[in-house]
Amino acid sequence: MRVYFTFDPRPDLKESLLRDFPEVDFVFHKKIDAEELAKAEVIVTYGEDLDEEKIKIAEKVEWIFVASAGIEKMPAQAIAERGIIVSNVRGIHKKPMAESILAHLLSIKRALPFIYKNQQEKTWNQKTKLYELNGSTALILGPGAIGSEVGRMLQAFEVYTIGLNRSGESAPYMNETHTMDKLEELLPKADVVISILPSTKETRYLLTYEHFALMKESCIFMNFGRGDLVKTEDLIRALEERKIFHAVLDVYETEPLPADSKLWDLDNVTISPHISSRSSRYLERSFEIFKPSLRKWMKGERDLENKMDILRGY
Amino acid sequence: MRVYFTFDPRPDLKESLLRDFPEVDFVFHKKIDAEELAKAEVIVTYGEDLDEEKIKIAEKVEWIFVASAGIEKMPAQAIAERGIIVSNVRGIHKKPMAESILAHLLSIKRALPFIYKNQQEKTWNQKTKLYELNGSTALILGPGAIGSEVGRMLQAFEVYTIGLNRSGESAPYMNETHTMDKLEELLPKADVVISILPSTKETRYLLTYEHFALMKESCIFMNFGRGDLVKTEDLIRALEERKIFHAVLDVYETEPLPADSKLWDLDNVTISPHISSRSSRYLERSFEIFKPSLRKWMKGERDLENKMDILRGY
Repeated sequence: MRVYFTFDPRPDLKESLLRDFPEVDFVFHKKIDAEELAKAEVIVTYGEDLDEEKIKIAEKVEWIFVASAGIEKMPAQAIAERGIIVSNVRGIHKKPMAESILAHLLSIKRALPFIYKNQQEKTWNQKTKLYELNGSTALILGPGAIGSEVGRMLQAFEVYTIGLNRSGESAPYMNETHTMDKLEELLPKADVVISILPSTKETRYLLTYEHFALMKESCIFMNFGRGDLVKTEDLIRALEERKIFHAVLDVYETEPLPADSKLWDLDNVTISPHISSRSSRYLERSFEIFKPSLRKWMKGERDLENKMDILRGY
Repeated sequence: MRVYFTFDPRPDLKESLLRDFPEVDFVFHKKIDAEELAKAEVIVTYGEDLDEEKIKIAEKVEWIFVASAGIEKMPAQAIAERGIIVSNVRGIHKKPMAESILAHLLSIKRALPFIYKNQQEKTWNQKTKLYELNGSTALILGPGAIGSEVGRMLQAFEVYTIGLNRSGESAPYMNETHTMDKLEELLPKADVVISILPSTKETRYLLTYEHFALMKESCIFMNFGRGDLVKTEDLIRALEERKIFHAVLDVYETEPLPADSKLWDLDNVTISPHISSRSSRYLERSFEIFKPSLRKWMKGERDLENKMDILRGY
């Protein structure tokens, strides 16, 4: 059996594969290669290097393992028609992302930007206010896998968590869960508003200037979902008028954030360059999902972890 | 009954006292005043403005409420001889301090200093490593009220917690607790070493250069206890030689940290100017402890919250 990696993993991870699966022919390439594609039964990819033509060439392939969460660039139709099984590493971003969200939130509450700034200037300066996270109320837009992990951590900090999702069905680690139409009613109660919403028809420009005007002046808004949740100009206006205390952004309408964006000039925003889900353990974790799946595959089992419906996109 | 505050609290807190205790004569002064001292039955102080002479003047005083955790500057002998009851706000620092410790830890793991620096320079830069806290092992030196609160939060992040105290008796939210003589054996296992130890004969210069040499090169060392836990020159040497990854310091041998300290020049240290226990809710919390105690006092009850043995110092 032949497993074709369209990227070249870290040596220690490669070695562990070769050691654990001596009966498998592994091929590791930095670039995609037609000849290898044609011979592979299993393809392991980051999901950005396949197209219809390549699926046609890969005539023996029965399973594609995508070592990332995004599959938007995969030729879904061609894959579905062939009945190729696709599985990915869904959930792999949960912990690093939730840790980043808590890091940013606590950093603002406990004045870390102030501490770092004074250290740069080699100044001993105690003149600042430090706030506490405990006792806050957080509104989580999209309490899915990541949102619930954030909820779990927030509850450990004695934060009251309110989730908003499509169904209003109770989500894990949420003290309350409601449907999205309660948004306007709940915004004025929140000390923290966190969005981990994906980009869909319903979430595109879901938040407007008026929503920020409803938030507390002390509110921290965090967007770790997708940049088109709010029009950048609406967000900038709300920040300029200090409708909220601070915004922490990991995603933007245009990425990289343009050099001339007004956001760079504001003092009440944190600009994280869409790196919050990153982790030094990323590939390691992918392999932790891939290896048991490969073992199953070799036994003829097809109920792989994170098996997905490529046409529905999840 | 006369209650003398040797400081002037926030108007809203004063008003709530006057409203809740109409039968009490409250006096609020910014400076200590001999005439008022002589009349007071209860003194409320930050604990830094009393001496033997003043205790002599305060001939009617039966209870001193200290609105801080530190009582080192109080004339212990004179107070004990008179049998004056002393109570303080022990535990008030627990939550803000624990939040600061987690903030710093997560900030380093999730590259917040890098993010802030690039934002200052208006640069979109993704080239950094982000680490995860979960799965780490933390060694907590002094798992008392604050240390256990830190342990509770760390466990929520799936960190394995090992406490070191004098008795070795199991402390809350520690997966293991040992006596201090296990220090050398445990240091090489720790990803994070956090000290919240007070300054005593036993803890003064407890850590030396050799201890840092025993730690992992990836270790984060955090001193939130007292500055004399380690000689500054030992710490600087360990950091210069990169025996550990990073140190986060809130306390120093000399405070403020002298402008010519080499620590300012290092890139693997965070210099927090001894503000980690601060909170915008501090006085509010003090009043939450003071008011029920005052109510008890007026009923003739003397088993006040946080009643302390002034001679033993806790």
